[in-house]
This record gives sequence, structure tokens and C-alpha cells, in this order.
Amino acid sequence: MQLGMIGLGKMGYNLVRNMLSHRHEVVAYDVSPEPAKELANYGAVPATTIEELVSKLHKPRTVWMMVPAGKIVDQVIDQVIPHLEPGDIVIDGGNSHYKDTLARGERLQAKGIHYMDAGTSGGTSGALEGGCFMIGGSPEAWDHVKDMFHDLSVEKGYLYTGKVGSGHFLKMIHNGIEYGMMQAIAEGFEILDKSQFDYNFEEVSRVWANGSVIRGWLMDLMENAFSKDPKLDQIRGVMNASGEGQWTVETALDLKANAPVIALSMFMRFRSLEDDTFHGKVVAALRNEFGGHAVVRKE
Amino acid sequence: MQLGMIGLGKMGYNLVRNMLSHRHEVVAYDVSPEPAKELANYGAVPATTIEELVSKLHKPRTVWMMVPAGKIVDQVIDQVIPHLEPGDIVIDGGNSHYKDTLARGERLQAKGIHYMDAGTSGGTSGALEGGCFMIGGSPEAWDHVKDMFHDLSVEKGYLYTGKVGSGHFLKMIHNGIEYGMMQAIAEGFEILDKSQFDYNFEEVSRVWANGSVIRGWLMDLMENAFSKDPKLDQIRGVMNASGEGQWTVETALDLKANAPVIALSMFMRFRSLEDDTFHGKVVAALRNEFGGHAVVRKE
Amino acid sequence: MQLGMIGLGKMGYNLVRNMLSHRHEVVAYDVSPEPAKELANYGAVPATTIEELVSKLHKPRTVWMMVPAGKIVDQVIDQVIPHLEPGDIVIDGGNSHYKDTLARGERLQAKGIHYMDAGTSGGTSGALEGGCFMIGGSPEAWDHVKDMFHDLSVEKGYLYTGKVGSGHFLKMIHNGIEYGMMQAIAEGFEILDKSQFDYNFEEVSRVWANGSVIRGWLMDLMENAFSKDPKLDQIRGVMNASGEGQWTVETALDLKANAPVIALSMFMRFRSLEDDTFHGKVVAALRNEFGGHAVVRKE
Amino acid sequence: MQLGMIGLGKMGYNLVRNMLSHRHEVVAYDVSPEPAKELANYGAVPATTIEELVSKLHKPRTVWMMVPAGKIVDQVIDQVIPHLEPGDIVIDGGNSHYKDTLARGERLQAKGIHYMDAGTSGGTSGALEGGCFMIGGSPEAWDHVKDMFHDLSVEKGYLYTGKVGSGHFLKMIHNGIEYGMMQAIAEGFEILDKSQFDYNFEEVSRVWANGSVIRGWLMDLMENAFSKDPKLDQIRGVMNASGEGQWTVETALDLKANAPVIALSMFMRFRSLEDDTFHGKVVAALRNEFGGHAVVRKE
Repeated sequence: MQLGMIGLGKMGYNLVRNMLSHRHEVVAYDVSPEPAKELANYGAVPATTIEELVSKLHKPRTVWMMVPAGKIVDQVIDQVIPHLEPGDIVIDGGNSHYKDTLARGERLQAKGIHYMDAGTSGGTSGALEGGCFMIGGSPEAWDHVKDMFHDLSVEKGYLYTGKVGSGHFLKMIHNGIEYGMMQAIAEGFEILDKSQFDYNFEEVSRVWANGSVIRGWLMDLMENAFSKDPKLDQIRGVMNASGEGQWTVETALDLKANAPVIALSMFMRFRSLEDDTFHGKVVAALRNEFGGHAVVRKE
Repeated sequence: MQLGMIGLGKMGYNLVRNMLSHRHEVVAYDVSPEPAKELANYGAVPATTIEELVSKLHKPRTVWMMVPAGKIVDQVIDQVIPHLEPGDIVIDGGNSHYKDTLARGERLQAKGIHYMDAGTSGGTSGALEGGCFMIGGSPEAWDHVKDMFHDLSVEKGYLYTGKVGSGHFLKMIHNGIEYGMMQAIAEGFEILDKSQFDYNFEEVSRVWANGSVIRGWLMDLMENAFSKDPKLDQIRGVMNASGEGQWTVETALDLKANAPVIALSMFMRFRSLEDDTFHGKVVAALRNEFGGHAVVRKE
Repeated sequence: MQLGMIGLGKMGYNLVRNMLSHRHEVVAYDVSPEPAKELANYGAVPATTIEELVSKLHKPRTVWMMVPAGKIVDQVIDQVIPHLEPGDIVIDGGNSHYKDTLARGERLQAKGIHYMDAGTSGGTSGALEGGCFMIGGSPEAWDHVKDMFHDLSVEKGYLYTGKVGSGHFLKMIHNGIEYGMMQAIAEGFEILDKSQFDYNFEEVSRVWANGSVIRGWLMDLMENAFSKDPKLDQIRGVMNASGEGQWTVETALDLKANAPVIALSMFMRFRSLEDDTFHGKVVAALRNEFGGHAVVRKE
Repeated sequence: MQLGMIGLGKMGYNLVRNMLSHRHEVVAYDVSPEPAKELANYGAVPATTIEELVSKLHKPRTVWMMVPAGKIVDQVIDQVIPHLEPGDIVIDGGNSHYKDTLARGERLQAKGIHYMDAGTSGGTSGALEGGCFMIGGSPEAWDHVKDMFHDLSVEKGYLYTGKVGSGHFLKMIHNGIEYGMMQAIAEGFEILDKSQFDYNFEEVSRVWANGSVIRGWLMDLMENAFSKDPKLDQIRGVMNASGEGQWTVETALDLKANAPVIALSMFMRFRSLEDDTFHGKVVAALRNEFGGHAVVRKE
């Protein structure tokens, strides 16, 4: 099929190459012109404006947005809509909040345009070689795009999840689980690191990645990481976060669902962003008050 | 090589079949005589006593214990030792606490017997078809048994971890990580279950098992589980635990290592074993005291 | 001073009696007519409609709303506003979300009406005999009402916190802390309850309430509670929650502040509302899949 | 009554002064001679050796040890025992692990000596002016010392908890609760510190300490602390810990009791002792592997 891709960052760029390798036609656009030019070498049709991108699409037009979650998605939608007609399809392949997706879905439905949300997992390598997709939208829209998702994904790696918003919701939860799994793995290695034994972490990751209960892609990646930096001496333990983990915890709170482990994973990330904490000062000050325990003074 | 297996439960039984299929000679013993007889059909030499088992082994004798952690291990060791000589090897393939293993290692070393600890992962299917092994012990002992471990495991699925105790320690941490990963996955599905969307959990597990960041054996198993019972309506959420998760948390405390997620996974298991909690009563009583908030009376 | 009280539930009713006992004039209204009639016996002027209530107030009119947080506050504001004039004061003494308070503050400011938020703590007994108040609003409005808050509170038990919203925010955090403190106390008693020792919990609460580091009103209340029901046998551990704990966690997430203990207190409350959990089923199913561990079947 | 005090640190010294002020006779000893000399000014009888101390006591002799938990307690017991006779009493007023206390109790019981454990709370000021005591031991021993504990404590601030070990167990749980309460308070102030409002924390502590649900000694101490250092700018958030919090969590694990909040309070303390964490490095490395997310390199 033919589609237009808006946003050619790490993920969008690789998805386009993946599409092209499966003989789909792609019109490609980014605010920066270079990636579209590069993709032209692989067979993409570059566009220099969104208007041009849409004008090069056949009806029903399918526009895939791969841009950062938040206001940029709305800005792109605002720019795309004037050039679309009822029956056209807009796909948000980014990590938008499902509530934003629900609102955008209603807004585009009012114009007769199909809005789809495609949660995308598998990292940058998955985008290129076969990823995992969770897709919400109308059945009609799904019928139009499902072959493409079949091509983009690894075997069994795509799922039509039902109405608009269900794809992003599922991707959000996927990421919440990912936070918890990563923190669990990380805690295990921290204990190993402090233990009396002298493990080779690359070897540990490898044996755990092969035949164990906790084997999986994250453990494969651990092996890669330790092969480059055996004790991770070169990096600091600063754990940044995009929004999905936090959204997962907020959603758990909304639904009165239990998510202590995912929540804790989130809080440990916040903690890692700070060199010192106010809560720590409060506890230290209290200990000093009641027991005369020494505090550590700032230099 | 030739070895004697003591303990033919789910794990020991499957390990013997795995050994036999790789043309190792196995003398097999269990307190219950049936499994040894059954294994004779696959080529094992059955023994009816531990003494008989040891008597049928060539020097250096290799005895593998696959019995429940705790006092039973010590009882088996007590029964085996009188029949062994310096240079013989005893392997504990169960989930013993590494501190017990350290003590046993010293005790047998004093007699010139090699003690090895083989943490075993991969479940019952792994025991049969290729598992994951983390093995501690002396280099001499390792030399004697490493080909067998190579045969028993999936490719790259075994690791010599160094001195006695290091194998069980690593297996303990593996299980601690497993607890955290399982709880993270479970929390994700709980949120899905309470959400406004209507997911097919077998399909969700399948798509997450293929190409996503959180893919791995646990997700494969989720798909199996949901294929049999789509909403797990037939079972109760009682989360029993063997000891390793708890030992991991205790070890983290000993080492002042951070393991909040593993600890929380443990506490949620405890919580699941109770229909009601005393801590809940205390909070309910307090809310009633200060705010007149209604309590739920027992019927 | 004179003021009108809208909402005569447990808290509003007691506050009116507290105001009357300090010789303030109160016009009292509730959707149910009985409490206003009762309060007339203490000297209040009953009103049967909001319009009547406002008509009986001198300028600048001071209206105190003590109604459940949420839409009811907006409904009351809608009913009150038409009868007010610039310079009048509206106080929300309930547990409104501070973001709602900010919005309402702007809305009333546009009409020249002062909006104040008075976070109220100390329970129903505090409302009657002297409570704790955290009050946000314009300095002019504060000047007008501060003597009344002085009278309503225990000594040092009121604080002008600055601009609109700051009172409700501070009360929200107070409640978040309260959740964590209650859970900590409750966990302590749960461990005692499972211990090998045979404590009298009323006596334990009493000794902890007198001279210990953890003494405070919550421990006094524990003693009361255990004096009535020594092992809390008559109640179930169902921990309901009003919104502030959840808001505190959401706010912590928004601000990337560390609040693991408050968050966990919240999740344990959610957990207590369910007899069984989906996350528990998932873990139980997984354990069964990989290790053949028995599940508990539903009857 | 008359008793001998061994250990004249912050707590022991103040307890002796408290005893003397209630006209008890105290023979005082410390490895360092100065405090006993100082206490002589208040009426204590100084001793320069443990032997001398015991020799100055009437039968039944009562020896109170106020020394750091651990091996020192056993060393002191070893030094005291040779000079004692059946019917004498030894009190451990420190924070010993209750399992150690149980063992010591059995050991002394075999010699006919009463062993008592007196968990002591209230800080250094409580030791001087009236503290909180939780005391285990035989009923006979309790009869002999109860008037003294009455004098040492604030009103209602002492409790005979039953057999040996029950006092230290109760004190351990008290400290576990304290950890959770302190962390809850600290999290609240951390959120305030990051909020859009500009609170005066001394004033906040004061209003919360007067009339609120969370009022208590810890909040009084917060006010003190903020009065000296309004934003705690002079100290670092390093949260050291003595052993009781960790023991509480271990005990909860042993008893399968729920203590997530106390456990988390403990882990946040561990976290505060490190500038960087290995678990953080692992998560950062994984994020880099699958998503190309930038890591923070060490300088």
C-alpha cells in the first residue's frame, strides 16, 4: 500500500525503511529535510511540506505520524486535516497518552476521518527489522492497513486491539511492565555487585538469557551492554523516563488497580535524577533532633 | 560420564531422562521406588538404597542430589558421606540457601570431597529438554562434570560461577528477579482487566511475546495460560512462594542493596495468602476514630 | 464576626457549634432542614434556602461551604454567586482538589469575590473543640476572617498559607502523610499480631502514646480503638479512602518527587477493597506454567 | 531502689540523672571514667571496674546495661556474671535484637539470674526527663524493678510486656513504625518543597503539630529543626540507620507479615547512602540498548 510518513526520527526513519523493504510506497516528510533525502535513496518519495506529502497520496489517504507525544501531535493534525477528506486515515504511531488519542479520535471522527493509534514496541532495531504493534481504530480503517502492519512486524507481532485508544493504552501498559521488569533485573545485578562473589556480568547475562525462566530480550540486551562495559563503570545510574511509566501509575490509581512494583520503578527513576533529596534531609534532621544522631553537613 | 541421582521428583526425574538421552550413565534413587523403576525403561540403573547407589558408581564418584532445600539435604549428605572417598563429588542441584551451601562445602572439603552447587532454572520442561545451570565448586570438580552440564543445558545455558556457593547465590538472585518480573507483568494485566477496553489476553500475551521489549519466556507462558483460561476465572490469586524471593530480600538488606521492587513482589505474595489483614483492621479502626468513617463489620 | 455556613454534615455542624461557642453569628443552611433547626438551639440562625442564607448576611458577606469535594462545590458556588457582590468572601472548607480551587479562585476573582480555601484537620472532635486550619486566599480576605480561625482552632492551630489553593494543597499533603503514618502503625501491629509474644494492644498503644518517639494523636486513637475491640475482631480490614491520598501520589508524580511510602499506603488500600486480585491470578498461573506449582482453584 | 548502671553514653548518663532525681541509688560505671565522676556530682556512686560496681550492690543486685547492641552486651554479661548470684537481675536497656535477648535470657536463667529487656524510647531528652519503656522479664524480677520504671517514665509511659524478649521485640517494632512515619513526613515535605507554593516549613510544622491528625512528637521536632535551618540547606539527606528498622523488615519476612511501607523506608535509607547506584546503571544501559536513549557518562 501507499502511505505518508510524517516524522523521520530514529523510529520513523527505520519504519520507512522497513516499509520500503516490503515494497510499500512511502511519501516521507520531516521538519528537517535530510532524512527524507536519505530515504529517497531507499525508494521513498520525499516531501518538503505536509501539504506536498498529502497531495502525493491516493485516496483513501493514509498518513502516519511518528512525532513526539504531546502538542506536536496536535500541531501536525492541524496541518494535515485541511488537506484530508472523509474516509482518509491518520495513524499516530507515537507514544501518545490514550486520553489524548480518545479526544483526537472524536475530533477526526467528526470530520469523517479515521483515526488510528499504533503503539510501537521493539526499539529502533524492531522498527527496522520487524517490531511489535498494538493498533486501535475502526474496523474499516484496520482492513485498509492490516497487511502493512503484517509486513512491518515480526511474526505474530501485531494486534488489532479494537476501538481508538486501545492501542496506545496497551502500549502504555507494556511500558509500565517494562519499567518494572527493568528495575527487577537491575536490582538483581545490584545485589550481585555488592555480594561476596566475583561474577562476570556478561557471562551471567548470557546464562540467564539462555534457558532460564527470566530469559528474554531484555536479558539479551544486558549481555550486549556488559560486553561493552563489564561493570558499567563508564556511565552514571541516571534513569530518565518518558511518560508512559508515569501514565501507567496514574491509570492504576484511577482504576484502583494494584501496581506497587511499577510505581516503585517510577519513583526509583525520579530518585536517580537527584544528587540529594529533601526527604533525606528531613529524616536526617529528625534523627538528629530526637537521638542526637550526627548529620552530614554540606561542604 | 556416569553419575548417581538422588531424588526423582519432577525436576530430578526429568534431569535423568535428559542425561540418558545424552548417553550418560545414571544410577537413580528415590525414597519412593517407582520413579527409579520407570527410569530403568529409559536406561537408568535403579538403586533401592543410597548405599547401593554409591556402590554402583566408579571413582571419582559423582552424586547429584535433587531434593527439597533444607534439612533433607543434610540428611542425604549424612547418608552419602560414609560411602564416599576423597576426590568424589557431591552436587546439590536444588534451591538451597547459599549460606547452607557454604557450610556444607566446608564440611565436605574437610573430608576431601568436592561439593558443588548447581542452581537450576528453566522449569520442568527445561530439565527435560535443556535448562539453565549456574554451577559453583572447585575447578577440579568442574573439569570432571562440565561436559555433562554442556549436554543438559540449552546452548550457552550453563555457567561455571566460581567457588562453592556462587551457583546457589546466583540462582537465588535469578529467582528474586523472576518475582519482580512476574509481579510487573501481573500488575500490567490487572490494569488491563480494570480498564475501559476489552482485550483478549491471550492475544495480548502473544503480541507482547513477539517483537516487543518485554518479550521472553514468561510472556510465552502467559499466552499458554490465557489460552486455557481466558480470564483466569477458574483460579484464585493465591501466590505461594518458595524461599528464594525472601532470601533475596534478606540478602539485599544484609548488603544494603536496593531491592524495593523485589521486596514488594514478596509482600504482595504474603498479602495474597490472607483473606483479611490485621494492618487493614488497624487503618479502618483509625479512620473510624478520627473521622467517624464507617467500618465494615464482620458478619 | 458573622458568617453563613452551607453544609451541616458531621464537620459543618460541629464547626458551627464551635463558632457559636465563640460568640460568632452563624446563619446555617443544609439541603436537609433538621441540622439547621437543631443548631438554632445553640444560637444559629437557620436558613431554608441559600438565597435566604445570603440575604441574612451583612457586607462583606462571608459564606463558608462545608460540602463534599467535587461537583457539589461548583453547584453551591453557582447558587451563591448571583446573590453576592464584589468584596464578599467564599470559603471552601472541604477537601477540594487544589487545582479545582485554583480554577474557582480565578472564576470568583473575575467577579471581585474573594475565594478562600481552608484545609481542615483534626477530625470531627477537632471541628467542635478546636481544630487545625490551613488557609489560602487574598491578604484582604484573610484580614477579615483571621480572628474567627483563631477562635476555631487549638492554640497555634491555624496558618495563613498564602495565595488561593495553598491551603488545600497543604491539607492534601497532610492527608498523604497521614496515609503513610497510618500504614506504618498498622504494619507494626500486624507484625505484633503474628509474633510469638502475646501483647495487649491497648496497653501497647498506651505506652507508645506516652513518651515514645512515635507518640501522637494517631496513637491515642489506637488506644481508644483497642479499648473497645482488643484484637479488632469485630471489623474487617477494608481500608476505604477519600481522594487526598491519591491526589498526593499524583502530585508527587507530576513534580517528580519521591513518595514511595505514601504511594504504597494507597495501593495497600486498593488491595484491601478486593477479595481476590487479577495480578494474583496472573502470578499463580505463571508459577503453574513454569514449575507445575499447584494453583488454588475456585470452588 | 539501688542499681548499678554500666554504660554512661548519652542515654545511660541521662537515665542515671533521671534515677538520681527520683532518689534512687545508682552505682555508675563506664569504660571511660569521666562520666561516672560527673555523675558523682549528682549523687551517683562511681565505680572504676565492673567488679567494683557489683561489689557495691545489695542483694538482689540489679545491673542495668546501657551499651551498644551486639557483642559488647555479651562481653559485659561475661564480666558481670562471675560476681552475681541466683536471684540477681540483669537488665539490657539497649536496642539488642530480641533473638539475642532470648538466648541471653536462657543462658542467665540457667544460672538462676533474672534477665530483663527494657526497650527504651523517647530519645535523650526522654531518658533525662521521662521516657517510654517496654520491659520483658520474669514476674518476680518485674516486681523488684517496677517502681523504678514508674519513676523513670512519663505518666503511663512504661509497660511490662511479659516474658524475656518481648520488650526488645516491641521496641524493635516501635522503631520500624518510626522509620515509616519519618519517611511519610519526609515525603510530604519533599512534595511541598517541589510545589508551586512557597511555604514556610517551620510554620507548616507548627500548624501540623497543633490540632491536626498527624500531630505528635515527630512534628514538634520538625518545627525545631526548621526553626534552626528553614530549608535544611546546611545538611545532606544522608539517612543512616541503626539496626531495628532492618530487623523489623526481616521479622516481617519471617512471619509473612505485610510491611511494605517499613521496608520501603529502609530501602530509601540505603539509597541515600550512595551517590550512584548499580541498579541505576543497569536501567540506563538497558534504555540505551533498546531505544538508543542517551546515557550520562562519567566525567
